[in-house]
Amino acid sequence: MTRIVPEPLTGGAFAPFGDVIECAGAADKIINQGQCQRFHDRAGMDFSDGQAGISLFNATPRSFPYTLDMMERHPDGSQAFIPMTQAAFLVIVALDDDGKPSAPRAFVTKSGQAINYHRNIWHGVCVPLHAPGLFAVVDRIGGSGDNLQEHWFDDPFTVEP
Amino acid sequence: MTRIVPEPLTGGAFAPFGDVIECAGAADKIINQGQCQRFHDRAGMDFSDGQAGISLFNATPRSFPYTLDMMERHPDGSQAFIPMTQAAFLVIVALDDDGKPSAPRAFVTKSGQAINYHRNIWHGVCVPLHAPGLFAVVDRIGGSGDNLQEHWFDDPFTVEP
Repeated sequence: MTRIVPEPLTGGAFAPFGDVIECAGAADKIINQGQCQRFHDRAGMDFSDGQAGISLFNATPRSFPYTLDMMERHPDGSQAFIPMTQAAFLVIVALDDDGKPSAPRAFVTKSGQAINYHRNIWHGVCVPLHAPGLFAVVDRIGGSGDNLQEHWFDDPFTVEP
Repeated sequence: MTRIVPEPLTGGAFAPFGDVIECAGAADKIINQGQCQRFHDRAGMDFSDGQAGISLFNATPRSFPYTLDMMERHPDGSQAFIPMTQAAFLVIVALDDDGKPSAPRAFVTKSGQAINYHRNIWHGVCVPLHAPGLFAVVDRIGGSGDNLQEHWFDDPFTVEP
């Protein structure tokens, strides 16, 4: 199997795929009588004819080596994953090549990072690396269409640091 | 000062004010080849003429006794607080009485609970009880109007277990 070495997650490296939502740079606003920094509107969301909803995902933690045999995308909406723990998770994304994911890349988050996949970006399933694998997910609710495409690889990848 | 004794946060007790977003009851859907539970669309969101955005709040942790001298509300939008840690935080809410908050109630969350204040519900500011005080906030971006009302109490309350 082709090996993918995961990279540390940074906003710059992730920009072709979506947003890293983190307290980066100066706060946009100081609120609550000086007691709270607000980093404002940090995710590019697009839900076509649907709308934003908040769901929880409770996923089985995995470990390395991780086998990547499938990627998916949501043609009609962005999808944000907000970890409800300080633990790292694994994020796998790919650009599109004629309807299929091309050259997947893997990223490992650090504490305080959430991510938002832009609409129609190929990504792996939710992969926590520690228990509990608990995430709040902001994605498209309602709207028409199925909003899910899957691609199964003939030759899976292995993700390992 | 009048004392408010915080209660454990439950969906039932919080229902007049908003939503407790947690893995309660059976999952609505099992996804990702059986590896992930989805608790679907658990927050009632309303952004009037604006839209949903994701921001981060980094707030100073507090401890008991906590002095409540001000509450606020957002006439034009709901506001969800998703902790990016497993630590408890303090949630203070009140019903309206002729344009002022009436009989504030305080709740302490447990690990795995996020909350969503419904539109125009009086609430206290973001009060983490442990560091880091990091939250993803889903609230109204854009739209017209100021979307903030504050009420300062002549006689503050003290919140203490």
